Amino acid sequence: MMNTYQINFEPTGKSGRCKGNQSLLDCANQVGMGIVSICGGHGWCHSCKVQILEGAVSKPTASERKIFSPEEIKKGFRLACQTYPEGDVKLFVPPESMTTIQRLQVEGFEIAVTPDSTVRSYNISLPAPSLSDLQADVERTFQGLNNQKIYCNNIDIEVLKNISNLLRSWDWKVKVFVRGSEVIAIGPQSSRQLGLAVDLGSTKIAAYLIDLESGANLAARGVTNPQFSYGEDIVTRLSLVLEKKGGGKLMQKVVIDELNRLLVALCTEVNAQPDEVVAAVIVGNTAMHHLLLKLPISQLAHAPYIPVVKAALDIKARDLGLNIAPGAYVHILPNIAGFVGADHVAMLLSTKPIWQKDDLALAIDIGTNSEISLISNGEISALSCASGPAFEGAEIKNGMRATAGAIERLRISNDRVDYLTIDEAEPIGICGSGILDAIAQLRLAGIVDKSGRMLNNHPRVRDNKGQREFVIVTEEERNGRPAITITQTDVRAIQLAKGAIRSGIQVLLATHNRSPEEIKKVVIAGAFGSYIDISSAITIGMLPSLPLNRFEQIGNAAGTGAKLALVSRSKVKEAQQIASEVHYIELGAVPDYTNFLMEAAALDEY
Amino acid sequence: MMNTYQINFEPTGKSGRCKGNQSLLDCANQVGMGIVSICGGHGWCHSCKVQILEGAVSKPTASERKIFSPEEIKKGFRLACQTYPEGDVKLFVPPESMTTIQRLQVEGFEIAVTPDSTVRSYNISLPAPSLSDLQADVERTFQGLNNQKIYCNNIDIEVLKNISNLLRSWDWKVKVFVRGSEVIAIGPQSSRQLGLAVDLGSTKIAAYLIDLESGANLAARGVTNPQFSYGEDIVTRLSLVLEKKGGGKLMQKVVIDELNRLLVALCTEVNAQPDEVVAAVIVGNTAMHHLLLKLPISQLAHAPYIPVVKAALDIKARDLGLNIAPGAYVHILPNIAGFVGADHVAMLLSTKPIWQKDDLALAIDIGTNSEISLISNGEISALSCASGPAFEGAEIKNGMRATAGAIERLRISNDRVDYLTIDEAEPIGICGSGILDAIAQLRLAGIVDKSGRMLNNHPRVRDNKGQREFVIVTEEERNGRPAITITQTDVRAIQLAKGAIRSGIQVLLATHNRSPEEIKKVVIAGAFGSYIDISSAITIGMLPSLPLNRFEQIGNAAGTGAKLALVSRSKVKEAQQIASEVHYIELGAVPDYTNFLMEAAALDEY
Repeated sequence: MMNTYQINFEPTGKSGRCKGNQSLLDCANQVGMGIVSICGGHGWCHSCKVQILEGAVSKPTASERKIFSPEEIKKGFRLACQTYPEGDVKLFVPPESMTTIQRLQVEGFEIAVTPDSTVRSYNISLPAPSLSDLQADVERTFQGLNNQKIYCNNIDIEVLKNISNLLRSWDWKVKVFVRGSEVIAIGPQSSRQLGLAVDLGSTKIAAYLIDLESGANLAARGVTNPQFSYGEDIVTRLSLVLEKKGGGKLMQKVVIDELNRLLVALCTEVNAQPDEVVAAVIVGNTAMHHLLLKLPISQLAHAPYIPVVKAALDIKARDLGLNIAPGAYVHILPNIAGFVGADHVAMLLSTKPIWQKDDLALAIDIGTNSEISLISNGEISALSCASGPAFEGAEIKNGMRATAGAIERLRISNDRVDYLTIDEAEPIGICGSGILDAIAQLRLAGIVDKSGRMLNNHPRVRDNKGQREFVIVTEEERNGRPAITITQTDVRAIQLAKGAIRSGIQVLLATHNRSPEEIKKVVIAGAFGSYIDISSAITIGMLPSLPLNRFEQIGNAAGTGAKLALVSRSKVKEAQQIASEVHYIELGAVPDYTNFLMEAAALDEY
Repeated sequence: MMNTYQINFEPTGKSGRCKGNQSLLDCANQVGMGIVSICGGHGWCHSCKVQILEGAVSKPTASERKIFSPEEIKKGFRLACQTYPEGDVKLFVPPESMTTIQRLQVEGFEIAVTPDSTVRSYNISLPAPSLSDLQADVERTFQGLNNQKIYCNNIDIEVLKNISNLLRSWDWKVKVFVRGSEVIAIGPQSSRQLGLAVDLGSTKIAAYLIDLESGANLAARGVTNPQFSYGEDIVTRLSLVLEKKGGGKLMQKVVIDELNRLLVALCTEVNAQPDEVVAAVIVGNTAMHHLLLKLPISQLAHAPYIPVVKAALDIKARDLGLNIAPGAYVHILPNIAGFVGADHVAMLLSTKPIWQKDDLALAIDIGTNSEISLISNGEISALSCASGPAFEGAEIKNGMRATAGAIERLRISNDRVDYLTIDEAEPIGICGSGILDAIAQLRLAGIVDKSGRMLNNHPRVRDNKGQREFVIVTEEERNGRPAITITQTDVRAIQLAKGAIRSGIQVLLATHNRSPEEIKKVVIAGAFGSYIDISSAITIGMLPSLPLNRFEQIGNAAGTGAKLALVSRSKVKEAQQIASEVHYIELGAVPDYTNFLMEAAALDEY
């Protein structure tokens, strides 16, 4: 009888018993842990990378020895389809090896930080007033705090309006929430001390409900930014504000309304009340930041793209219309520049433990605008480049967002095309990571040359209405519906997008007189960047040609940064220090930037 | 030909040329300076007291030598009707000698204080941003302040919403208003720096527009508190709030609306804009304070009468709905207890220069509730006594408020009654100071005995529907309309009122084991207290029997206190120190208080 072993998959915690003749990929499928496999377990697509943390497994195959360095093998890196358990095994599935659904569940990453929120809570029990003890309610409360060596001299006006009734209805036993020297909320002693962290993306809003005392993430939700229906890209939204009376008010209102809905939904999940949320942190790019606060954006929308404010802000929740405890503050992390916002600061904050050890490191957030920081000896230089919406599936013939049915991974082997769709649904289009794979595979197969020209040298290449295209899914395979193809124009769009990103990297390196191979660590954050195949990005020259283990794809690092700032005062300070120390480079002021851009457009590994 | 002399009347500044055979009272009438004269210039009512500051006048008459001490004569105290100019004369008319109209014009008093407002303003000129100077608008503004060694790290959210447009529309030359380290307003460099001081009385609201840079009083207005129409007394208003849904909101709204109207009216007078007002200070009794802030009042309305808060508060103007600069703060002076409010603190603050020199001093604000402080070696003890509405004309048969036609001064000489009405209008009733005079004169004439019983020993005493009364103005003198009288019940009402006040004084003295004659200074503030005839108050035993020069009637000292706190940071601190140091005595907790009250009810000088 075949032995069975306990297999534990980190970081999801999924586990189950598997037989010794099942590969780790088979085990994963059996326990419902989605691991990417494009080639179906044949060992040639290299997408099912995992890291063995504990336990005995079969020896590396030739195929594995080819793609992993001896050092990586030593660290336990393997292909799940080539590896068999020989005992109980604990293994780590990196984000890039997870299917989209699995990735969404563990989006972002956690950093252990000692909880030390700006808001503290204290349970106090007070004597009731009498003719011989005439202290006012506020002073009585302050005295109760003083007895615990907490000194307050300020109380929010909204707390003031309720304190007398609350003290009496809870029989003088209350929990007092203090920020600095200000009482910002009062509740029964059973009140929880909750916080709300928000990553306000232009496409997606991610919101987290946090226990401020333990730092634990109690609930998380992601929704589409409702501004999206007024304009997919930020420029359209800014134009709406500039051109339409009441546009700014509308842009703010739809976001605040959505945040309030998220708040209620998150609280409902853990059976809490919105007014138990006594602190919030919101991060977003500079434009989202300005729209949220209803700041003027005219000067932000035109060169030289000046933000109203870069400094961190603390704003009363009620002044924003956010329905957490009315005396609570919303902390807004600082911006760096018009196109490098608080979300990049939050990303730098949360990834600092990753990049701070290395002399030369890159931290990249890829989006319509991509923010890139180069960290050299602790000194951060940052810039923003207009990478455009191609990676979000826009301006690509069969492009689509990363939802069910999108081709997200793709391999070309001779005449054959293998691909993987999100949710394993019937293919309906290609999302960003799929396009990136496609261009890289076309380049590797010699179907697209260095200049980006598509050659007519493959059975799947055809001319369609005067435009050359490569067929991924044929009309027949789609039962007569139009084929899914990559066109010559698509290749050009990706060239522009990746050229913008790479030229940004090159400008940063040139500014410091350094070369790509000196980079020890590349941190890639954000929805798109976390899901791409790094090898593909290297193949087309979007990312520098470096050993794969120098790259870390870390998911929603901005959201993690918001959570850190929510939970820890020292992280708030650290964020301010990071923002104030960053040296911002305006590409518009780099004289020979066009040269950098031209060079970076070539589809070549370098 | 008779010589003419220049006569100057202080503090109104009225002046004119008069002949040597005109008394100073005649001169006053000629130049429109209203001085009280009850006896019509015969020298026996002693109401036209003035003080000669400069210049030669006639020698004192026998009548004057009788009422003034040699020391007072030396200081220039005279009766205006007995004194004739012998050269150019400058003289001072004390408030108690002024007619109501004149008094209203100079209500309150000014104390020289070095302007040092919590809000400072700075003119800055900034470089415009460019591709090579990408500083954000707020940071650019902060930098402009830094250049003047002013360090800000906070900016109001409403300022944030406008700063970008304002900086550009004024071509980067602006005036920045700073409070602590927060930018609270921005305007053109021509902006004024104005403040609003408000004495929020339960009957009257007095508002002052102040230049914060010079400390000058630019405009002042007084209106009836609009809450008045919902209840003359505070108890009725508190009941409305407790019993009627929305009552609290209504009470707040009518006051805020009135303050906003006052603000516009004051600004219009000096051609200013409400948003040039960058600071406000409001004082009121504890109940008015709570109604203004819409604080709960249930616990304030019932024993042991606990205020929500005693500490001073700084509240954003927008959180109160006050239409000054939206980022500005309203400072609310601290309360002392449920019945000793911020208005008493403001009074103590503004009168401190008067009482602080003397070992034992009294500071009194007479109203429906009278607040009394005893200052012994710099240590302040305060209490509140329920003196009732009799002095405001309520519960008195022919009582009325101090408006046109009210008898405000009165003398009885044998069968004759002389009186003075406000505006010299036909008499229609008696106001508080008139009632006080009447009771004192009845007592001096032996018509009312020590116990308060009215004797039937005078031609003007009669029995009317079973009640004894003294006729001041007969039916005939009023052409058939009802006579104006003082009834036995009126005497009892005044006995209760004055007994409450005097018993308060006696409790304070007893607490410190001191006697009345040790009091060196009695400061009397407020509308009623400032206009009474001190001699009358002494005659009926309402105030201690002390030389008249120990009394100072100083008008609206609470309003002056509010102005001081508005103009000077050190006065804000001083007010907080005063409030925190006051030892409050709750009469309800004084075991033998009833004895004090019984003793103090007797109509006897002591």
